[in-house]
Amino acid sequence: MLIPAMVDLYYGHDDWQIFAICAFMVGGLSLMTAMATRSAPPVFSKRLGFLLVNVLWAVFSLVGAIPLLFSGQGLNFAQSLFESISAITTTGSTVMVGLDHMPPGLLLWRSLLQWLGGIGIVALGLFVLPFLRVGGMSFFKMESSDISDKPFARLASFTRAFFAIYVGITLLCAISYDFAGMSHFDAINHSMSTVATGGFSTHDASFGHFRSEMLLWISTFFMAICSLPFSILIVFIVRGRLDALRDPQIGVFFGYLTAFAIATAVYSHLANDVDFATAITHSFFNFASILSTTGFASQDYTLWGPFAVSAALFATFMGGCSGSTAGGIKAYRFVILANIITIGLKKLIYPNAVYSVRYGRQTVDAETQRTVFLFFSAYVFLWVIGSMLMGAFGYDIETSTSAVITALSNVGPGIGPIIGPAGNFATMSDPALYLLSLMMLLGRLEVLTVLVLLMPMFWKN
Amino acid sequence: MLIPAMVDLYYGHDDWQIFAICAFMVGGLSLMTAMATRSAPPVFSKRLGFLLVNVLWAVFSLVGAIPLLFSGQGLNFAQSLFESISAITTTGSTVMVGLDHMPPGLLLWRSLLQWLGGIGIVALGLFVLPFLRVGGMSFFKMESSDISDKPFARLASFTRAFFAIYVGITLLCAISYDFAGMSHFDAINHSMSTVATGGFSTHDASFGHFRSEMLLWISTFFMAICSLPFSILIVFIVRGRLDALRDPQIGVFFGYLTAFAIATAVYSHLANDVDFATAITHSFFNFASILSTTGFASQDYTLWGPFAVSAALFATFMGGCSGSTAGGIKAYRFVILANIITIGLKKLIYPNAVYSVRYGRQTVDAETQRTVFLFFSAYVFLWVIGSMLMGAFGYDIETSTSAVITALSNVGPGIGPIIGPAGNFATMSDPALYLLSLMMLLGRLEVLTVLVLLMPMFWKN
Repeated sequence: MLIPAMVDLYYGHDDWQIFAICAFMVGGLSLMTAMATRSAPPVFSKRLGFLLVNVLWAVFSLVGAIPLLFSGQGLNFAQSLFESISAITTTGSTVMVGLDHMPPGLLLWRSLLQWLGGIGIVALGLFVLPFLRVGGMSFFKMESSDISDKPFARLASFTRAFFAIYVGITLLCAISYDFAGMSHFDAINHSMSTVATGGFSTHDASFGHFRSEMLLWISTFFMAICSLPFSILIVFIVRGRLDALRDPQIGVFFGYLTAFAIATAVYSHLANDVDFATAITHSFFNFASILSTTGFASQDYTLWGPFAVSAALFATFMGGCSGSTAGGIKAYRFVILANIITIGLKKLIYPNAVYSVRYGRQTVDAETQRTVFLFFSAYVFLWVIGSMLMGAFGYDIETSTSAVITALSNVGPGIGPIIGPAGNFATMSDPALYLLSLMMLLGRLEVLTVLVLLMPMFWKN
Repeated sequence: MLIPAMVDLYYGHDDWQIFAICAFMVGGLSLMTAMATRSAPPVFSKRLGFLLVNVLWAVFSLVGAIPLLFSGQGLNFAQSLFESISAITTTGSTVMVGLDHMPPGLLLWRSLLQWLGGIGIVALGLFVLPFLRVGGMSFFKMESSDISDKPFARLASFTRAFFAIYVGITLLCAISYDFAGMSHFDAINHSMSTVATGGFSTHDASFGHFRSEMLLWISTFFMAICSLPFSILIVFIVRGRLDALRDPQIGVFFGYLTAFAIATAVYSHLANDVDFATAITHSFFNFASILSTTGFASQDYTLWGPFAVSAALFATFMGGCSGSTAGGIKAYRFVILANIITIGLKKLIYPNAVYSVRYGRQTVDAETQRTVFLFFSAYVFLWVIGSMLMGAFGYDIETSTSAVITALSNVGPGIGPIIGPAGNFATMSDPALYLLSLMMLLGRLEVLTVLVLLMPMFWKN
């Protein structure tokens, strides 16, 4: 909070006082809590792990909301909380209108929350979820420990490498944006937003504001990079090991990104008579944005025609790779799902033949298949229940279904006139904002981490 | 075809000639085929089984389309095939407008196709799919053989009992409709449509035409009955064994039917100021219609408000029980899915505890869990791919997504202005009709039975 305070002070905005007071209050409260709980830490159990992750994200969300609530932008509690959770979960859905004229400290605060949320989620994916065995993540436990065994002697050096690379990519992205024509302030904010695959912009028109195809391609590149597994980026960058990129989910992610982008570009070229080069630029940018779960927009792609609308809606489910800042169902789960379906069909023909579900060269055990399935069905059910609740709150079917999935997958924009890429969440009612806030947290924490709290068994003994 | 010919002759319609000629042609062709293939039947294998089922439904669909194509109602080939497949798969989506003034033979033809399709699908579910081990059906193989062992010594007596009950329920339904005020002709047509959970009506306004709450409740009763497993109905009716009704999927089916109906009635009562008794009548009728995958409508329920629209869309996925004329994902799969999710969450808390997935008192083995999952994910993927294709054909997202799921689940109406309960499929383009025809067949044959044909392995050797 002291960083936006200083920025506001530098630009001569009175807003610095709000950040300074909030920093003082939160700092004091944190210090008191730390002192009050100075006794020995409790014995670590899986239940404590789940509780800790949930409480951590909840507290972080509340703290993030405080400066927004007192910012004098007229946000109520539900809106402030929504905006804060949207940032921390790197979703990028916003309730704020008139971004172009907001105090710089506030804009930086939103970007910082996203950037920190991005670190949080990669750390969670690398170090915590594999231990908690959530949603097929245990599969990558083997893999990342396998990787960390060789190039990194200890966890600490792996963590240092991760931070260095996260900061490094952010700087590289900011410099590229700067060179391609953004102001320094815009470049820093958008680079934090890009690397965290968040999607908050400093302009209401998002990337449409800049009218630069160069910037779109730079952003596409960085969004795609940040959808890849960080553990693999580390091995690739630190040790120069190209073979790390052979992880099947990377091919699948680039496969569906290219398929969505080219299909929509061809469609847009034919249906709307758009020049193909322009169509492909915007198509790649906007689908990289959706599939990396960033949520920037260069145009209102829902105006490209019905195919673009359905493509955008279903792309919102998909997401990037494991261990990245991207959300969604994720590419590695699709690799396993596709494998399960193909083998299932083969077994219908020859029921007694033995086939094993594979992920690249590895065999996927029954336990991992089960957790992938568990995640997939829980994801679909949450989407259904959430959409029906949004319907009960009075929202039409396009808005309801797309709002819930864009929240659950941490993408940002939905479809339809209200929350489409040209709209925002400012007019949504408080119950809808609370529901979507919950969905963002559910999606960010890989669904099961939160759902587990609903089991009475969790609270026994 | 001779039955509608006679009916048209009785009512003095020239249409009888078309049916007579078609009957003569198809009869001759069938005779020739039968004579040409009089050699010994080939050795039965699973692959032959899959091929046989697919070819049977395809030929049946083509034959059903012939009188429609030559009926002089201005239907082209795509429309005739769609209407025929819609009848045989007991979907009930129609491309025909002005039903109130159509020749009675043609209306009866549509009803007969549905009724025969209903027999076909129950027979498939009882006798063929368990053998082919499609989509968790092998689970019910045990169960139905278990049932047939005790009350029925041989398959033949089981088959006779099934026909007797199917015909019996149809007659009972027709008599009830007749007493409650339908004309004889309407009563017969609607009873065939109800028992097959098809949904074709003899009036454009469907059940809205009759303006009778009594008829709605009678229809609700019969639609619900025909969504139950026929094997269980047989045991219950023939042997009076009440315990047969303890099958968990029955409770779950009535559970979600009641939940959807009451929630929508309360919503409609509050949002639209409708008298609660009227609201509950229409709500039960229309959700029994969607969940039994019949597709009758008493009103345009999509005008009840956004919640009713989302409820109707998601109810279209669900369906009735196994071994019934109903389509959709089906209640027994939801029982198993819910069990898998609950146990998955428990295992996250205590990973070393041993839990078994249960269906009532039975344990669901890993193989059955896998096939349920296979079906569920293949179903969702088909819906996604189909919806995107519909988008490419130019249909808006509401129409696209609901058209594909209503076809896949064999329900009938979708949502939105074109194919909603007040609309029909008459204006749809040929590519869309072919796609939806394929989806209806895929859904009716439990998806995997058709998808297996896409595997290159299926055609080898």
